[in-house]
Amino acid sequence: MFTQQDIKFMKRAISLAKRGIGYVNPNPPVGAVVVKDGMIISEGYHERYGGFHAERNAILNARKRGVDLLGTTMYVTLEPCDHYGKTPPCTDLIIETGIKRVIIACRDPNPISGDGISKLQRAGIEVMVGLLENEAKEVMKFFIKFITKKLPYVTLKYASSLDGKIADFNGNSKWITNELRKVVHKLRREHMAVMVGAGTVLKDNPQLNIRLVRSKKRAPIKIILDWEGKTLDRCSEQNVYSPESEVIVFSKRVDYPVKNHVRIVKAREPIEILKTLWTLGIDSVLVEGGAEVFTEFLPFADEIYAFYGLKVLGDGRDIFAGISNTIDTPFGFSITKTLVAKNRSEFLVVMKRCSQV
Amino acid sequence: MFTQQDIKFMKRAISLAKRGIGYVNPNPPVGAVVVKDGMIISEGYHERYGGFHAERNAILNARKRGVDLLGTTMYVTLEPCDHYGKTPPCTDLIIETGIKRVIIACRDPNPISGDGISKLQRAGIEVMVGLLENEAKEVMKFFIKFITKKLPYVTLKYASSLDGKIADFNGNSKWITNELRKVVHKLRREHMAVMVGAGTVLKDNPQLNIRLVRSKKRAPIKIILDWEGKTLDRCSEQNVYSPESEVIVFSKRVDYPVKNHVRIVKAREPIEILKTLWTLGIDSVLVEGGAEVFTEFLPFADEIYAFYGLKVLGDGRDIFAGISNTIDTPFGFSITKTLVAKNRSEFLVVMKRCSQV
Repeated sequence: MFTQQDIKFMKRAISLAKRGIGYVNPNPPVGAVVVKDGMIISEGYHERYGGFHAERNAILNARKRGVDLLGTTMYVTLEPCDHYGKTPPCTDLIIETGIKRVIIACRDPNPISGDGISKLQRAGIEVMVGLLENEAKEVMKFFIKFITKKLPYVTLKYASSLDGKIADFNGNSKWITNELRKVVHKLRREHMAVMVGAGTVLKDNPQLNIRLVRSKKRAPIKIILDWEGKTLDRCSEQNVYSPESEVIVFSKRVDYPVKNHVRIVKAREPIEILKTLWTLGIDSVLVEGGAEVFTEFLPFADEIYAFYGLKVLGDGRDIFAGISNTIDTPFGFSITKTLVAKNRSEFLVVMKRCSQV
Repeated sequence: MFTQQDIKFMKRAISLAKRGIGYVNPNPPVGAVVVKDGMIISEGYHERYGGFHAERNAILNARKRGVDLLGTTMYVTLEPCDHYGKTPPCTDLIIETGIKRVIIACRDPNPISGDGISKLQRAGIEVMVGLLENEAKEVMKFFIKFITKKLPYVTLKYASSLDGKIADFNGNSKWITNELRKVVHKLRREHMAVMVGAGTVLKDNPQLNIRLVRSKKRAPIKIILDWEGKTLDRCSEQNVYSPESEVIVFSKRVDYPVKNHVRIVKAREPIEILKTLWTLGIDSVLVEGGAEVFTEFLPFADEIYAFYGLKVLGDGRDIFAGISNTIDTPFGFSITKTLVAKNRSEFLVVMKRCSQV
């Protein structure tokens, strides 16, 4: 049904979509290419939250250069929207442009987007759906979870020694892995928010911003789990409270005098916290520790990035705190990727919850 | 200096050598091919301890078929011996056969083998050395360690959960990894001996033999570290004492009444134990646990096979017992290989001591 050409063009659309990851949340990153006589004549992607959709950018890019799109084929990674949001419906623009055929990787799971496929078909446009659907879904995984489950996508990230310790007996945890730290900063760029416990803030005073990779944003939203308000008492001393990005603190008291970029919410249970993040429009959260936070959010994790450094620490801090599983307790994750650092002394194992593999 | 043809033939010799791994100890596994006019006309390898060397087998295979080896080239993974051991010198046979050229991967580190290269050269044979030397050394790593360090090659093997536990809080450790167990049985086939502590014997009653892969031997030599003699009191109940292979027990008392295939030696310190194994002609030992044994033999390990199962056990038995390293303690190993099981829920990381990578 789909040709090698089709696959090639959709791959290009997916790679364009990826450029939006981390900048469009909680919108989906989407890419589009327009093809005439076997050649790409225009491209576009959703670049930032509130900006034009991929289809509109592809069409506008053509118009700017006076390129006529009559009779062409559009490849787009997500079903074009048929509603007025921050921008008018893409369907109308596609129809008006005279595009003859639209090939879509993945239907829009969002009911408010309207039925874009029917609208296009009623206008006489040939529509095909499902090309490289899984690859496209992977790029939009935050959005899909956010829309269909009304919860943010949760990624757990830990850096451990070979023997499962995230800190040595002195509590020191910098850097168990070093060369692969870039991957962590890429994860921070991709996710809309990062989360840590108050203990980690007080002990490590982390910045939790994006440093080792190029990024259009300085930091993700920072979420601090601080039921007792221990970091709130001294927030001016903590890097994490820097005004470079919004900070959300979950605490039992909400009446601390804090700056404008800090919001305090009363919630303690992981599910409550995740639901709150959803209502705040946060589609993805990278859980960075410590051990108690890992344990509490493990049941909600969609993906785990497990970094291991070639060290043996022995007595030290376990990755997880307060777990007692037997050997036949199902874990429910599956390895999707492994990576060995060039220095050959660190490795990464990426795992996804099985239902989503 | 060496041609693509040369590399091809030496690769073949190395792959023949590998067939002897696990069956020739403490001799080196060696392979040889004889080439005439760009074609392999005979092959041989060292098949079992006490059997003919690779060169002799290659020459005899040709003679059996009436093939004349005059003017041919031999590719052999180790310098031919020039002494009378269990078999006469290979050098004499090569010279007598009229082979014109001998290409050798690796010089013999064993002084008692004599200077085979000079002997061949003095007889007018062209000799070249060093082709695929590292690959050949990897195949003979047990032999090289045994000869040059007067110690056996030590491989540590553990199977752990993601969080560094080799048993759950009940002490249960079967099977943290399942699909990759075949690799363990292959390691048992390759190594001359396996080693466990008395605690592991009493708790798991392991067989420590070779089951999941094809093997010409039923089991490696079994070494039990049992200073207190706890397994010796009830050895008839323990699988590990089966007469399928020799058993060596390190204990403070040596006067237990044991069967003929069991030998008791008084030694406690790891270095003493390893030196004893060397004097007994054991070139390689696979250390299979438990935690105390891993900790004691880690400083002597040449290689680590770290199996991880996708499980989180939390409270449970740590891989290593009684270690307290800081985060900047050097570990000195380097990753040489990673492997993900087909079921995607187990992985293996192989590490080698850096000086040997």
